[in-house]
Amino acid sequence: MSHSWWLEDCRPIDRDAHQQALARQQQLTKPAGSLGQLETVAVQLAGLQGRVKPNLDQVWIAIFAADHGVVAEGISAYPQAVTGQMLHNFVNGGAAISVLARQLNAQLEVIDLGTATPLDDLPGVRHVRIGAGTANFAQTPAMTPAQGLQALQAGRESALRAVAAGSQLFIGGEMGIGNTTAASALACALLGCPVTDLVGPGTGLDAAGVSHKAQVIEGALHKHAALPGDPLSRLFCFGGFEIAALVGAYLACAQAGVAVLVDGFICSVAALVAVRLNPECRQWLLFGHRGAEPGHWHILQTLQAQPLLDLGLRLGEGSGAALAVPLLRLACDLHGQMATFAEAAVADRGQ
Amino acid sequence: MSHSWWLEDCRPIDRDAHQQALARQQQLTKPAGSLGQLETVAVQLAGLQGRVKPNLDQVWIAIFAADHGVVAEGISAYPQAVTGQMLHNFVNGGAAISVLARQLNAQLEVIDLGTATPLDDLPGVRHVRIGAGTANFAQTPAMTPAQGLQALQAGRESALRAVAAGSQLFIGGEMGIGNTTAASALACALLGCPVTDLVGPGTGLDAAGVSHKAQVIEGALHKHAALPGDPLSRLFCFGGFEIAALVGAYLACAQAGVAVLVDGFICSVAALVAVRLNPECRQWLLFGHRGAEPGHWHILQTLQAQPLLDLGLRLGEGSGAALAVPLLRLACDLHGQMATFAEAAVADRGQ
Repeated sequence: MSHSWWLEDCRPIDRDAHQQALARQQQLTKPAGSLGQLETVAVQLAGLQGRVKPNLDQVWIAIFAADHGVVAEGISAYPQAVTGQMLHNFVNGGAAISVLARQLNAQLEVIDLGTATPLDDLPGVRHVRIGAGTANFAQTPAMTPAQGLQALQAGRESALRAVAAGSQLFIGGEMGIGNTTAASALACALLGCPVTDLVGPGTGLDAAGVSHKAQVIEGALHKHAALPGDPLSRLFCFGGFEIAALVGAYLACAQAGVAVLVDGFICSVAALVAVRLNPECRQWLLFGHRGAEPGHWHILQTLQAQPLLDLGLRLGEGSGAALAVPLLRLACDLHGQMATFAEAAVADRGQ
Repeated sequence: MSHSWWLEDCRPIDRDAHQQALARQQQLTKPAGSLGQLETVAVQLAGLQGRVKPNLDQVWIAIFAADHGVVAEGISAYPQAVTGQMLHNFVNGGAAISVLARQLNAQLEVIDLGTATPLDDLPGVRHVRIGAGTANFAQTPAMTPAQGLQALQAGRESALRAVAAGSQLFIGGEMGIGNTTAASALACALLGCPVTDLVGPGTGLDAAGVSHKAQVIEGALHKHAALPGDPLSRLFCFGGFEIAALVGAYLACAQAGVAVLVDGFICSVAALVAVRLNPECRQWLLFGHRGAEPGHWHILQTLQAQPLLDLGLRLGEGSGAALAVPLLRLACDLHGQMATFAEAAVADRGQ
């Protein structure tokens, strides 16, 4: 692992391809701007891919799973064993993201960063056991710096495998009972905003559960108030292994020049950490959807992100990003295959 | 043509399939409700298709094109010749909907209901010339009752071809320079709401253009104030041939039991007419997107419709509905292919 690799330069955008794609959009047989956000993303992808007609045939989906010590505080609607059980489900093809990856012809990689009860070697799962879940951040920092760096590196290595496979789009997903609590605490620590802005029902807490979750986060923020202000310290204090891995993956993608499609609340908090660490990575990030978790809206606003979908999703696993892939592909198809006014002999406005 | 065929019963929903699909959703390995709107549509499609695991392999897209006499009032940003030129573009594969139909493996049917300058027989276009466009409704009703009935029937026949081809989803699209003006006037006449609620830039008018368009509609509503109050009279007075054809197609689909995916503003106004004529058809209508035309929101609210996408689209041609097809297909795939808690040995909440 190179020293502070996450601070190295991100790949610059190809301004020529971006400009040519913008010019092409103006010539296609439709009223200017009438394909709305799909025009914007096609032009953005042209700049990222360095080609006037981008495509997204090769999609890589990496699911990072890990457990969270803070579950001991009773902040989740589901038992902790579900994290490990879902790892089986991912590789057996029964989880939502398994179905989506199959339908999208995407490469699905499943990475175990540490469940509370260690799993035996599962065929199809890449085991990178950093610990038996994180420590309970209501009491002590969730990770040691060494664990945090290992998690960042695990994400980076997934991104590098995606690059080696010729991927044109990287989707990171997460699985970890308790991880909306970790993400909410981390985002509050980064943004200095009230806990009530960023706490929500997660997988399905009732009002009393949400209130308790907010109290646990409040208490932890108070306990760690003397924490250094840098994003990495905050990530290691509150984050999960899977959140740190997402941060590492996003940054490595931006450095290698692979577009990222960010999923829901937890992934967006990881994106926020990545942008705070290395702001240039922001232009490599697209956002798949706005989820049901109330704090997601706040994070998207902070990142000035315009997600593609708003379907009330709150599943995680990368599923909301995966669901947006067909839209991005169709945006590329429209951009690349529509006739120009000249080619089709159609009058443009005012002619 | 049978007498008032559009008033005949719509096919009832299969309540058993609907209930079984609902029960299945509760057992899939995800927090209950976490796939948001995709769960709702999968269950709805189960009830419509009469099978617990619906699918949307066979999609039919019919584009209805026609010209509008009201263009003489200077209410469009584009010259009227574009309607006919775009018919060429549809069948030559260069239009947005041509690209989308190809990528979705959908059957694309293009129907010419009457351009201002008659077109020669175009290979791939079904010519059903009802007139050289409608009359200018700023002066006289747009259609005669005979023309209106012919347009309804043209839509019905397209729906019946879709049924014969085994289609599981019908998308109607429209092309007709001036047709946001026709749709806005028609919706105002139906809803009795202020013109300002329903008028917008269409393909790209500036503020002065929108203001003039609103005045033209105001004048026409005043001129035809003594019109009978039934939806058909209003449709024939203000609508275009393509709008009436969409009404006929939607009603025939609901009668034959084929789900409809409604496109943008103009199609949603056609859906409103269909629902006013035969309210039972409402349950067969799904809504693809919320478009950029301001009046679309108003119509969707009136229909209590929850569209899938909100991407700032304002193209028409059925494009916004076509863009939502992959989401509906993935909703069916998730519903049909995900493992249940029991199958995957994953703990549900509270266990």
